Amino acid sequence: MKKFMNDPKAFVPEMLKGLALANPDTIVYDPKYNLIVRADAPSDDRVSIVQGSGSGHEPAHVMVVGEGMLDAACPGDIFAAPPTDFVLAAARRVRSDKGVLLLVNNYTGDRMAFEMAEELAAAEGIKVRTLFIDDDVAVKDSTYTIGRRGVAGNFFVIKAVGAAAAAGKDLDEIVRIGEKVNSVTRTMGVALTACTPPAKSEPLFDLADDEIELGVGIHGEPGRARQKWVPADELVDLLLDPIVSDLPFSSGDDVAVMVNGLGGTPISELYLVYGIVHEKLTAQGITPARNYVGEYCTALDMAGASITLVQLDDEIRELLAAPAEIPIRTF
Amino acid sequence: MKKFMNDPKAFVPEMLKGLALANPDTIVYDPKYNLIVRADAPSDDRVSIVQGSGSGHEPAHVMVVGEGMLDAACPGDIFAAPPTDFVLAAARRVRSDKGVLLLVNNYTGDRMAFEMAEELAAAEGIKVRTLFIDDDVAVKDSTYTIGRRGVAGNFFVIKAVGAAAAAGKDLDEIVRIGEKVNSVTRTMGVALTACTPPAKSEPLFDLADDEIELGVGIHGEPGRARQKWVPADELVDLLLDPIVSDLPFSSGDDVAVMVNGLGGTPISELYLVYGIVHEKLTAQGITPARNYVGEYCTALDMAGASITLVQLDDEIRELLAAPAEIPIRTF
Repeated sequence: MKKFMNDPKAFVPEMLKGLALANPDTIVYDPKYNLIVRADAPSDDRVSIVQGSGSGHEPAHVMVVGEGMLDAACPGDIFAAPPTDFVLAAARRVRSDKGVLLLVNNYTGDRMAFEMAEELAAAEGIKVRTLFIDDDVAVKDSTYTIGRRGVAGNFFVIKAVGAAAAAGKDLDEIVRIGEKVNSVTRTMGVALTACTPPAKSEPLFDLADDEIELGVGIHGEPGRARQKWVPADELVDLLLDPIVSDLPFSSGDDVAVMVNGLGGTPISELYLVYGIVHEKLTAQGITPARNYVGEYCTALDMAGASITLVQLDDEIRELLAAPAEIPIRTF
Repeated sequence: MKKFMNDPKAFVPEMLKGLALANPDTIVYDPKYNLIVRADAPSDDRVSIVQGSGSGHEPAHVMVVGEGMLDAACPGDIFAAPPTDFVLAAARRVRSDKGVLLLVNNYTGDRMAFEMAEELAAAEGIKVRTLFIDDDVAVKDSTYTIGRRGVAGNFFVIKAVGAAAAAGKDLDEIVRIGEKVNSVTRTMGVALTACTPPAKSEPLFDLADDEIELGVGIHGEPGRARQKWVPADELVDLLLDPIVSDLPFSSGDDVAVMVNGLGGTPISELYLVYGIVHEKLTAQGITPARNYVGEYCTALDMAGASITLVQLDDEIRELLAAPAEIPIRTF
């Protein structure tokens, strides 16, 4: 197994250190609790937004710490929830008079760590709420989850609550916004290959040379079905139909569309997929009003992609269009 | 071989169509000549900048068409130079009184197509110049190249001449700037895996499970040496030393650093590499004053990365910091 790494156990800290060295003016890395924090956080003028989750999903969530996005990210080890005391340390670090919102993708381990940390933080007098994200339509329960999994749609919740926090909204209002965005966001993904964690020498699961895993989770959890590879036109139907019918999205809707790469798929293929998604939605009277094509929430080096739709209204449209800054320079 | 695609022969047009559907206000796709063109180009107030090259290197170069970057991209098929008449069509399409600059990575096929197109365009009265980019220190000559290859450092030439064009500089001055940036830019890459073109069922070359190709080209061309995988600390030395000693870069230099993914490597690994590069440069008295971590110039789905250094002076620093727009939304 070949990766750019030294000791596999140091993979996450070394990545976070590199991220901080690349962004000395805007973010700070706290190696004791593995936190990535905005250099100018906290501010009592705004609610602080924190996202925690296992690592291995980069750029989520450590690379979206910045103005109008997260105040802090609290990553665990690869595919592992952060320890409760790390989450508590994050809440303390960005404690604000206006409050702290903890964002969590819906996995049992993460729920436990964050709910416990919320209790401990509240006992210290920190004003804190927790919001769970569960946008994946693929399966009802899964390997690490009771209920639906939280996957790439998470990005839209971060963007919306980050914009609301930057605008000075209060904690209850921001929770309302986050829950609303989560409630109109739907995702489904597919794996073309498995992924290999740094500390393992073999892929997490077996997938034959002609097989795909439909509805795969972002930790390689099983999806809805394993089947033979099909061309992109057909594959988009297999992802898009369950997404559209779930909310359901319907003719007349404006949507934000994300085509998210899972880590090993080049952006050329993602734009090819976007073109197909765009035309299929338009044919159903659904308008792709905003789009996001690239890597947002990955599964290490997995080849694959997910599609996310968000039903837009004026409020969500405005929040998604708000200015923001992230630690990744594109030009 | 599993990719998101339909007919492999339609891979490039379908990708370009998706890119255009995602950016209806800012870029136009001309399917006849496979061009991606700024919607507001040409303007007689500025020199028009065109980049051509084979496809399979995305986001280079079709996804950097925009304000302060390229006016048009003229991609060929996967890893193949665009036909001369397509290049000529691009020059005609963005013809400007101030002139047209054609940017070309140094590969024999591309040189032939672009030099011929330049002659034909000039014969029609189009004011046109061509600039070749050859930043790869790995090998002197290569499979498709006499002289050094042009690889990811290309991005810096585009950014600098794009900024100069936006500032209204004339064609001679922009050629001077482009040649200057190319002359202080050095790159070297490494492959951890081969890549598989859409129209082939197998990887372009064989690389054993424990092997890496040092100095690989962005079309899978051989590099300097094939050897056993080594940890990232050691691997960075194997890339950075030939780069630093080539110009040479030396103590007191300010540099722009790019850690570029080759398509199949997740951004987590690229930031881990950036951290190592940053510390090794700093230890030599070289200051990483700007950084770029992500995918800029890929080789389809190849796992691997390249490192680029650019020696900064006030002029280049200012050009790289100029505002720009690209067709990829990050938040």
